[in-house]
Amino acid sequence: MFYVIGLGLSDEKDITVKGLEAVKGSERVYLESYTSILMVEKEKLEAFYERPVITATRELVELEADDILKDADKVDISFLVVGDPLGATTHSDLLLRAQSRNIPTSIIHNASILTALGSTGLQMYSFGQTLSLPFYTETWRPDSWYPRLEENLRLGVHTLVLLDIKVREQSEENMARGRLIYEPPRFMNPAQAFNQMLLTESIRHPAPKAQSQKPSQPSSDSDSEEEGGEEKDPYPSLMPPSQTLAISLSRVGTPSQRLISGTLSELAALDEEEFGGPLHSVVIVGKRLHPLELEYAGKFAIGGENGDWWRVGKEVYGVERETFY
Amino acid sequence: MFYVIGLGLSDEKDITVKGLEAVKGSERVYLESYTSILMVEKEKLEAFYERPVITATRELVELEADDILKDADKVDISFLVVGDPLGATTHSDLLLRAQSRNIPTSIIHNASILTALGSTGLQMYSFGQTLSLPFYTETWRPDSWYPRLEENLRLGVHTLVLLDIKVREQSEENMARGRLIYEPPRFMNPAQAFNQMLLTESIRHPAPKAQSQKPSQPSSDSDSEEEGGEEKDPYPSLMPPSQTLAISLSRVGTPSQRLISGTLSELAALDEEEFGGPLHSVVIVGKRLHPLELEYAGKFAIGGENGDWWRVGKEVYGVERETFY
Repeated sequence: MFYVIGLGLSDEKDITVKGLEAVKGSERVYLESYTSILMVEKEKLEAFYERPVITATRELVELEADDILKDADKVDISFLVVGDPLGATTHSDLLLRAQSRNIPTSIIHNASILTALGSTGLQMYSFGQTLSLPFYTETWRPDSWYPRLEENLRLGVHTLVLLDIKVREQSEENMARGRLIYEPPRFMNPAQAFNQMLLTESIRHPAPKAQSQKPSQPSSDSDSEEEGGEEKDPYPSLMPPSQTLAISLSRVGTPSQRLISGTLSELAALDEEEFGGPLHSVVIVGKRLHPLELEYAGKFAIGGENGDWWRVGKEVYGVERETFY
Repeated sequence: MFYVIGLGLSDEKDITVKGLEAVKGSERVYLESYTSILMVEKEKLEAFYERPVITATRELVELEADDILKDADKVDISFLVVGDPLGATTHSDLLLRAQSRNIPTSIIHNASILTALGSTGLQMYSFGQTLSLPFYTETWRPDSWYPRLEENLRLGVHTLVLLDIKVREQSEENMARGRLIYEPPRFMNPAQAFNQMLLTESIRHPAPKAQSQKPSQPSSDSDSEEEGGEEKDPYPSLMPPSQTLAISLSRVGTPSQRLISGTLSELAALDEEEFGGPLHSVVIVGKRLHPLELEYAGKFAIGGENGDWWRVGKEVYGVERETFY
């Protein structure tokens, strides 16, 4: 049997009882290591499983898939994936390949950021498309995420934005010289993510000349960020930074989980250290915000009860606070 | 500590190792029983946990929440939820209430249908809003899901449709007489779901008089189902049943999991028995379908290699088959 087993979000004990039984009975155990990371060392996993764990790099999975599947028709092989096993296309590919070789497959599901984002208090029903934000460089700032975010904002639904990670990157020099030396892994911090988003926002919707930081009469049915902005910008921004709510999610499902909510402007102004270590993702809040969502996510608001979260929630999103308990 | 613990999708062994430890150390263990069901008897859970399990009805959770939380500042209390714990609003309410009483809370995540739908081979990135389809009656056919589905279809993204379940319903007579007698639980079957969807579709977009079952020249850039339909229907349907792909998901994540893919017309024509027992959900496939998604979900196609799945995938969705392995 070829098992594809989700490990959940945090540490070695987030595997399911069923998954653990499969791992303990497996001849070989692979750990997919390039689309996400677990908050625990491989050695700790090995001690808990009482089995050696083979790191499966992207090259191994994409080029040597048959080595991974070898003998899986006779013995049990486990392929471990952080989160739920079926997030990334590559694993569909591995499963299709196994099926084409008449290898029985079994998927053991687990938590993923998609469900754990319920920690924000936002309703899963109110999320639109999930986006992926790549690392920008001086010369390469791919913004294909922007029109998709606009599609969600136009509908008023929330957007989960997954942040890029770079594992086993080679420097240009090492690559040119054919040296298999890899850079340390990099994980995008929410501060960087929000600032990249503001950069693209400012390119697509340049601020008008006579700029004032706070509009004097913010209104829930105005989409333009600044007074007089509409004259210069025929397609008004759906994401004016000081009038758009967002939430950062850090290490969701782990003991050091941290959520921070606020306006895009507030969040982009925070230091990277505020968000702590990886993994992170961010949510852009849509206009269909419900009072219970406002209340729950407001527990993590920058500035607490006096934060812009509440002002923008009321004045721009049109959500009145209610008492729930 | 007040633990809210996801049980995953199938049986007693889908709990995580961490979740099981929390349950075994808890003074009281509640099982939320009205938004979903586990594929296993409560007695089996009790034997596995070595603890009694208290069934938490909607009334208990909504009206007697303080009883559930009682002493959770001094001892451990576990509240078990099928799937991931943070799907339904009520649990946000319970968590907010606990926090307002200074009770520490801990959420132990698990798999949910939202991630497990990766079993279809469809990419999580390509899903839009999730919908809920209620049971129709002769006189009550709430179709507020329809415009949301149209929003997704217009963008070309996929739609997960969760199907209604009815637990602890009272008949009108028993309710009128104040008898606390409940009907057996009901779970919507995909056959019923697809036929409800076709009913709403036919009301919103009545078929033209001169109807022909198969258009002679289907084309990927035509949204009208029938030849000449556009003259009668100023807002052409985004979901012509014979040209819209869908997938049913039954008992996902369990050993008897069954997926069936085909056109809406094909799926609606199947008997309920084809889908087997609960729980079920369905997916409406959006036009941004990727060749790998077509291939993977095509493994479950009605009619196999000759099914309408492939014809509509090519002619309507414009996806050419590729070889992946």
